[in-house]
Order: sequence, then C-alpha cells, then structure tokens
Amino acid sequence: MLQLKEIIQDASRLFVGDAVPDQYYQDTYVKNIKPVYAVALPKTHKEVQELVRFANEKDLVIIARGAGTGVAGSQVPIQGNELIIDVHLMDKIVELDEDTLTLTVEPGVLIGDLHDYVENKGYFYPPDPASKHSTIGGNVATNAGGLRAVKYGTTRDYVREMTVVLPDGEEMTLGSLNIKSSSGYDLKDLFIGSEGTLGITTRIRLKLIPLPKANVTILQAFETAQKATEATLEILKSGVDPSGIELFERSALHYAEENLGYPLKSQVGQAYLMISLDGNDQKELDGRIDIVQSVTSDLTLESHALNAEEAEKNWALRDNILLGLTKFTEFELLDEVVPINKFAELIESTKAMQEKHGLNVLNFGHAGDGNVHTLLMKDDLTEEEWTEKRAALLKDLYQKVDELGGLPSAEHGIGIVKKEYMGRMTQTINLDYMRKIKRVFDPDNRLNPDKVF
Amino acid sequence: MLQLKEIIQDASRLFVGDAVPDQYYQDTYVKNIKPVYAVALPKTHKEVQELVRFANEKDLVIIARGAGTGVAGSQVPIQGNELIIDVHLMDKIVELDEDTLTLTVEPGVLIGDLHDYVENKGYFYPPDPASKHSTIGGNVATNAGGLRAVKYGTTRDYVREMTVVLPDGEEMTLGSLNIKSSSGYDLKDLFIGSEGTLGITTRIRLKLIPLPKANVTILQAFETAQKATEATLEILKSGVDPSGIELFERSALHYAEENLGYPLKSQVGQAYLMISLDGNDQKELDGRIDIVQSVTSDLTLESHALNAEEAEKNWALRDNILLGLTKFTEFELLDEVVPINKFAELIESTKAMQEKHGLNVLNFGHAGDGNVHTLLMKDDLTEEEWTEKRAALLKDLYQKVDELGGLPSAEHGIGIVKKEYMGRMTQTINLDYMRKIKRVFDPDNRLNPDKVF
Ligand SMILES: Cc1cc2nc3c(=O)[nH]c(=O)nc-3n(C[C@H](O)[C@H](O)[C@H](O)COP(=O)(O)OP(=O)(O)OC[C@H]3O[C@@H](n4cnc5c(N)ncnc54)[C@H](O)[C@@H]3O)c2cc1C
Ligand SMILES: Cc1cc2nc3c(=O)[nH]c(=O)nc-3n(C[C@H](O)[C@H](O)[C@H](O)COP(=O)(O)OP(=O)(O)OC[C@H]3O[C@@H](n4cnc5c(N)ncnc54)[C@H](O)[C@@H]3O)c2cc1C
Repeated sequence: MLQLKEIIQDASRLFVGDAVPDQYYQDTYVKNIKPVYAVALPKTHKEVQELVRFANEKDLVIIARGAGTGVAGSQVPIQGNELIIDVHLMDKIVELDEDTLTLTVEPGVLIGDLHDYVENKGYFYPPDPASKHSTIGGNVATNAGGLRAVKYGTTRDYVREMTVVLPDGEEMTLGSLNIKSSSGYDLKDLFIGSEGTLGITTRIRLKLIPLPKANVTILQAFETAQKATEATLEILKSGVDPSGIELFERSALHYAEENLGYPLKSQVGQAYLMISLDGNDQKELDGRIDIVQSVTSDLTLESHALNAEEAEKNWALRDNILLGLTKFTEFELLDEVVPINKFAELIESTKAMQEKHGLNVLNFGHAGDGNVHTLLMKDDLTEEEWTEKRAALLKDLYQKVDELGGLPSAEHGIGIVKKEYMGRMTQTINLDYMRKIKRVFDPDNRLNPDKVF
Repeated sequence: MLQLKEIIQDASRLFVGDAVPDQYYQDTYVKNIKPVYAVALPKTHKEVQELVRFANEKDLVIIARGAGTGVAGSQVPIQGNELIIDVHLMDKIVELDEDTLTLTVEPGVLIGDLHDYVENKGYFYPPDPASKHSTIGGNVATNAGGLRAVKYGTTRDYVREMTVVLPDGEEMTLGSLNIKSSSGYDLKDLFIGSEGTLGITTRIRLKLIPLPKANVTILQAFETAQKATEATLEILKSGVDPSGIELFERSALHYAEENLGYPLKSQVGQAYLMISLDGNDQKELDGRIDIVQSVTSDLTLESHALNAEEAEKNWALRDNILLGLTKFTEFELLDEVVPINKFAELIESTKAMQEKHGLNVLNFGHAGDGNVHTLLMKDDLTEEEWTEKRAALLKDLYQKVDELGGLPSAEHGIGIVKKEYMGRMTQTINLDYMRKIKRVFDPDNRLNPDKVF
C-alpha cells in the first residue's frame, strides 16, 4: 500500500494532523473544529485515485473540496479523522474545441478565470455564480446557478461529460460529447448537484455557446415586491427572453449604497427589478426593451434602460448587497426557491416572521426563477438570542416554503446547514431512494457521509 | 386481492389471453409473437397502481405502453405472460397554468394534440418528434427529440415534474414546479429516457415558453454531405441560434419527390440543409438570414430563404422521406448520434459499407445535433440476405459510431433492437451501475425487464 507521502511527494501539498490549516475546518459560513486526518492537494487524476484507494485501505472518510466558497457546510469535516482531498490545484484548462463548441477543464479552474478565457475567444459559458473564486468542480457539485439562469439554465445544462473517481477508487466517465442521447440511464445528472457524495470530479467537458454581441439592463422601481413579481410574470410571458430578472428590496440595497457611496439610479419605491436582455442585434434589443416597458407600464413607478456606465454602477450595487451587509452585521444567507408565481408571497411572509421572532430579515434574489435569497440579520442580538430566534424563524420560513411548493436550496446545496429542513420538506419515499442510490455508489459510506440527507 | 375485472370494470378496456389484439405484439418495426397474459387500459392513476399491485401478487412482468409508435421494440413483449398496461386512454389535459408557464397532462395525450392545444393559447412546447401520434408519456420514456433540439433541447428539458407508479405499486413524484434546485439527487432525470424500465408515468407537468411570433426556413444545396456539415458548424458558431438544422442526401429525398409529385426547390448538389430560425422580430430574423448566408457562402451551391408557401412544401418533402420510402422498399431506420463535427465522416463511412455489404444505405438527420438517421434498405434482397447483410453492416456501422465517440440512440431508445450494440458501446462500469440502479427501483425485475441493457 502506498503511503500518503508516496502519493503526494511534494510536501507543500500535504498537511497531516495538527499541520492542517484552519481554513479546512470551514466554508464561508460554517465552522466545525473536528481534527482531520490529513489534507492532500493532488495535481492529477491518478493522485486522486491513489488518495481514494489509500482512504479505503485506512478506512478513512473522504471529503472533496474546491475553493471552499460554499455556504452550506457540505465540505466541512463533521466526523473527525477525515481525509480532505482539495482539488483546487488541478486547475488546467485542457482544451477549447471549437468544432464541438466545448471546453475541457480540470475541476480546480476558477469560474471567473473560465469566463475570461472563453469570452476572450468569442465564446460564452452562461452560468455565473457571484462567487467568481469558486471552482468549476464545486459549481458542478452544487449545480451552481447565478444571474443568467432564466434564459440559460444552471451548471447542469452545460456539463456534457465528466470523469469521476468513485468512492472505491474506480473511475467512470458520465455523459459524452453527443448532444442528444436516448441510450440508457442518465447517470451524469445524478452526479451533478450531489455535493461530493457520489464521486470526486477530476475532469469536465462543458458546452459553450457563441458570445452574445449586445446586452442591456433595465432598472424598474415598484411600490411593493408583489408588484415586482407581477411584472416578472408579465416579462416572462411576453417572449422577450430575459437572461436574468433580479429583485431586491430597498431595505437590502441600502447597505450597498452606503458601502459603495453612491445611490441606485432609482430612489422611489420599495422594490426593484434589474432585467437583463442579450442578443446579437442592437435594434432588436431596443424592440425588446420597448416590450418590457409596455407590458409592465401599469405596475412600475419608474423604468430606465441603463446605458453602459449606469448598468455597471447599478449592477455593482446589486452585487454589493452581501458585502455591504457584512460591514454592518453578521447574517445568515438562504437560497430557498418557490414556483415563480409565489415569489412575492414568500417575501411578504418573511415580514410577518420578522415581527413575530424579533429578527431582521431582508430579501433579494433571482425573481425570474423563483429563487429568493433571504437574509437573517444578527444586528445587536446576543449569540444566544441569535441562535434561538434564528432557529425558530427558519422553522417557520421553511414551513412556508414547503406550503408554497418550494425547496430548501436552489443553488447553494443542502450540506449540513439545511439537512434538517431538507428532511422535513422531501417526501420520505424520495429520501429513501436517494439513500439507496448513495449506497449503490458508496456502500461503505466513505464519501462525504451525513451530508444532504 | 382485486381481480383484473374488478380493477378494470369496463370490459372494453381489458383483453385477456387470446383476446389480446395483434397490435400489442409489435411496435412500428418490431414484431414478437409471445402470448401475453392480458392488456389493460386504465383511465386513472389509481387503476394503474391497482394493476401493478395485481401483477405483483400474480408475479407477472409488466410493460407500459403509449401509442406503440416506438421503433426499438421497447414496449414489445419478449418473455411471454406479460401484463401490458396501455395508458393511451389517460389522455386528459389537466391544467394550463399561465402563472408558472406549465401544462399538466396525463401520459396518453398525443404530442400533436398537445402542440395544437398550447399553440392556440399562444404558448410553445418545443420538442416535436415527427410521430405526432406518439404519446407524451412515450416521449418522456424515450427522451424524444425532433427537429428543434438544436435551440430548444429534448423532452428532458421540458419535464418539470412527473408522477410515476413504481414497480411495487408505490407512487413517487419527481422534480417540482421550481425552476432551480440544489436539493438532493436529481431522480427525475434518471426516469426520463429509461424506456419504461423504472416506473409508469401517470402525470407530467411540462414547461412551456411563449410562442415565437416569426420563423423562416433556409434551404441550402451542397456538393457533398461533408460541405453541408462544415456549413452546419459555421452556422452554429455564428450565433444565429437556429432552432433546427436538418441534413438530407439527394438520394434519400428522391423517394419523397416521387411520392409527393413535386421537386425540392433546389435540384443541384448531393446534400441539402434546411435551417430553421425563429424569433419575435421579422427584421431581426432577416439579419440572421443574412448571417447564415454569409458564413456559408464559400460552401453552398445555392441558398434560398423560403417564403411561407415554399417552406411548407419543402418541409413536407423532408417529412415525407420515410413515408416515400415505405412505398418502394422495406427498410430499417437507425438514430445513431455522433459529436457534431463527425457527422459527415459517419455519413461518408456508410458509403463504403454499402459497397462492402451490398446493401443500399441512405442518410438524413438532425445535423445541428449530430443525430443521423441512417436507413438500410431491403430492396430486392431475399429475407435471408436481408437479415445477414444487415447484421454485418450494423456491426460495422456501430463500430464506426463508437470510434467517433457516438452513441447507438439519440432519440428512439435502445429497446431490444439496439441492446447488443448498446452493450458493446458502453463502458462496463456504466452498464453495471445502470443495472444496480434498475435493481434499486425494481428488485423483482418486474417492469420491462431485459430491455435497454
Ligand atoms: C459571496 C458568495 C456568493 C455566492 N454566489 C453564488 C451564486 O450566485 N450562485 C451559486 O450557485 N452559488 C453561489 N455561492 C455559493 C458557492 O460559491 C457555490 O456553492 C460554489 O459552487 C462552491 O464552489 P467551491 O469550489 O467553493 O466548492 P467548495 O465550497 O469547496 O465545495 C462545495 C461542495 O462541492 C463539493 N466539491 C467541490 N469540488 C468537488 C469535486 N471536484 N468533486 C466532487 N465534489 C466537489 C464539496 O465536497 C462540497 O460538497 C456564493 C458564495 C459566496 C461566498
Ligand atoms: C414515423 C415515425 C417518426 C418518428 N419520429 C421521431 C422523432 O422525430 N423523434 C423521436 O424522438 N422519435 C421519433 N419516433 C419514435 C417514437 O415515436 C417515439 O419513440 C415516441 O416517443 C414513442 O411514444 P409512444 O407513445 O408511441 O410510446 P410506445 O411506442 O408505446 O413506447 C415506447 C417506450 O416508452 C415506454 N412508455 C410509454 N408510455 C409510458 C408511460 N406512461 N410510462 C412509462 N413508460 C412508458 C414503453 O414502455 C416503451 O419503452 C418516430 C416514430 C415513427 C414511427
């Protein structure tokens, strides 16, 4: 049997026991101090396989890790004595194949770098989580979304083929370069979004599309989130094919304005939409702007098609909501999703919960796909109050999400943070089959056990 | 235990033993005379459940059947003594929900009726298999494709939620109304395209989009299929976002011209593309026509943007290739798929096989997604020659498809007809996991056993 030091011969890529850096005990929001066995940073598929075989010999639990930007604790050690396989050094862009419009990458490539690379060559990889420093492997493991999912879908829709190392060290390639298939069960989609519980991804072939030549943003102000949601439905029905429809409340934006030091272009109303349209023909885009404005005219207080400079400044505000907030308070970020026509009802319901539980709540999110980012804010609460009130509010909130036919996570994953709610909100029979499928691929429960369900 | 006659009390919906009509022993191409136990035509989800429970009690194999338009023998009895559950009478359109842009249907709704229904209301369900009399349940079971997959994807991309009866009679709902999810394993995509081997679909909720207001067809003529394939790649890279790119050879079209009694608009060259574009703005569409013509100008012999009447007549020719052929010879229709840049190489390779095996071969297909429909023609061969030469040619052909990184089926499914090739062309580990997953849902191997793999 190979020893860890024989597998990873470069000492700078191996941390054992006490030498494991703090960062490996946490992700963006979750911290869990459980001594891990070791952290190894492989550079090749073969090293990943050898590490997995080592863990099998030693009967160690394995956790795969990308950039650690996750927010659900799904890459955090919870057993003690885990082997963490951090693949972020496997960061090669292997091949851009212009004849099949695909890009082959290793899992550690950062999504921001991937965007830059393909856009420089005239191509487009639509999924764009705000976390530009997350890895594509992590994106696949969480089925990451972002701001363009309305038109373009999520990470799932762009994975043509992926190679994984299974919990026993075997390798399997899922999917293929073929665009269509009716040739057996779709195993690939089982692995996408499985939060590193079925296999460790070592190579991914992504679908690209040609880069749209033009785009525009429309900023609209509304009296209420309800009206903004109604406008969202009108826009979706109008056929203008928006790439994204973002909604935020004035109260959430406030922190970003303060942080960046300039105001949103619109200062009226309590809720805003930022609608993005893209295409190849500026005139046709102008036609679509007119349609957006006409189908929403009874609902808006103001509607602005932004010029390039305004678009950049106003998007910066939207993107700064979280960062802005960080300066003022500790918070918990959710990513629940409901059917698009229930978006406003969910947001409204959080107002009552705020009152009931004495905990401040803000909302923003991807209105075009029903994905709300609810923010619970600690403000001046004591640690104890914060824990208690938060738990009580979360129970009510997820109950409401369930009533509305929603799900606990749209794009961040379940991890450990939402596991309890996932359990309550999912039919027993579905959970049972998920567990059975986990056992098919991982009979020893070696890979990221006790996450998700 | 309920008896069959108690479950299906209406005698016209139950055929037992010798009373089973001939049609149930066959699909479009496969015939297999094995006495079945009974055929039941349920009208409700509950009847399906009771039938499945009955089969469990009696230890009968079950086959689900839609319209029987399949071409892979996946709904044909092969064991003897099966209970066939024909769901085509479950044909209600349950609800058009304009607030979530979804349509809920029973599985027996015919895809042609579904299109008419939603298009009359201004909505669009893009997947469009040429078999307008197939059921949506069958479409989901085979992940049906059609002519618009380049832009819009296949059936898989439009199933938001589906309810299935599992092999043990339990019910499960897969997916949800939510547009995004990172909440556990994606079980839904496992069932889509599983050819009735995992569960019987009794209800489906489909995603709709607004109906495009304008569309146009461009007909292009080429010296060779190779040039037509090169043009396909140029069009895909240009960003014009075609809804479909169909390729056919003159030799295949010939039969349709003879059958319909009028010629294709272009009479030069050996290969043709029909490119469809859709959108909401006629002017912008005109701009895209110009782009198509300019990026392909070095490759085409002729290029025509068709007016509405011409488009209809020329599409009728394309759609008539199979029907035309039926009048002249018996044939076998394939639906292999290869990476888009290998399309011409595959077609060319069939020419050499035609010589080698003394069997006429024609090709047409969905060039925009790499899906070739190769036709093997019996012509004047004896039954024995036809069987022998065909088997030899198929072996060579699928070997070539495999070398090119292709798959045996893009949209028709594997059934029994392509099972042998599926076995050869799929990695053993992938087949093993498919079998293990089959066992998870169907430990008694009760539902459509020995199909696909
Ligand atoms: C400020 C901020 C903004 C964000 N915005 C978005 C957003 O807009 N949209 C969105 O979807 N998410 C967003 N996220 C969440 C997060 O960035 C994503 O979940 C991301 O996909 C995680 O990638 P990672 O490389 O950091 O993975 P990690 O956090 O390291 O791991 C996440 C999960 O993926 C698994 N994993 C990682 N690599 C692999 C691999 N190679 N093989 C198998 N499993 C693997 C881990 O085991 C773990 O379960 C945001 C996070 C932050 C902090
Ligand atoms: C002329 C012609 C043209 C065609 N063109 C196309 C095309 O362009 N694109 C394309 O994709 N296909 C095409 N097909 C193939 C065929 O129409 C499709 O495979 C169709 O989806 C089958 O639907 P069906 O209702 O006839 O199913 P059936 O033939 O009855 O059954 C097919 C499979 O689906 C399963 N099944 C049916 N209903 C259910 C259910 N409710 N639950 C679970 N399993 C079920 C059956 O068990 C079987 O495995 C064509 C066929 C013909 C004859």
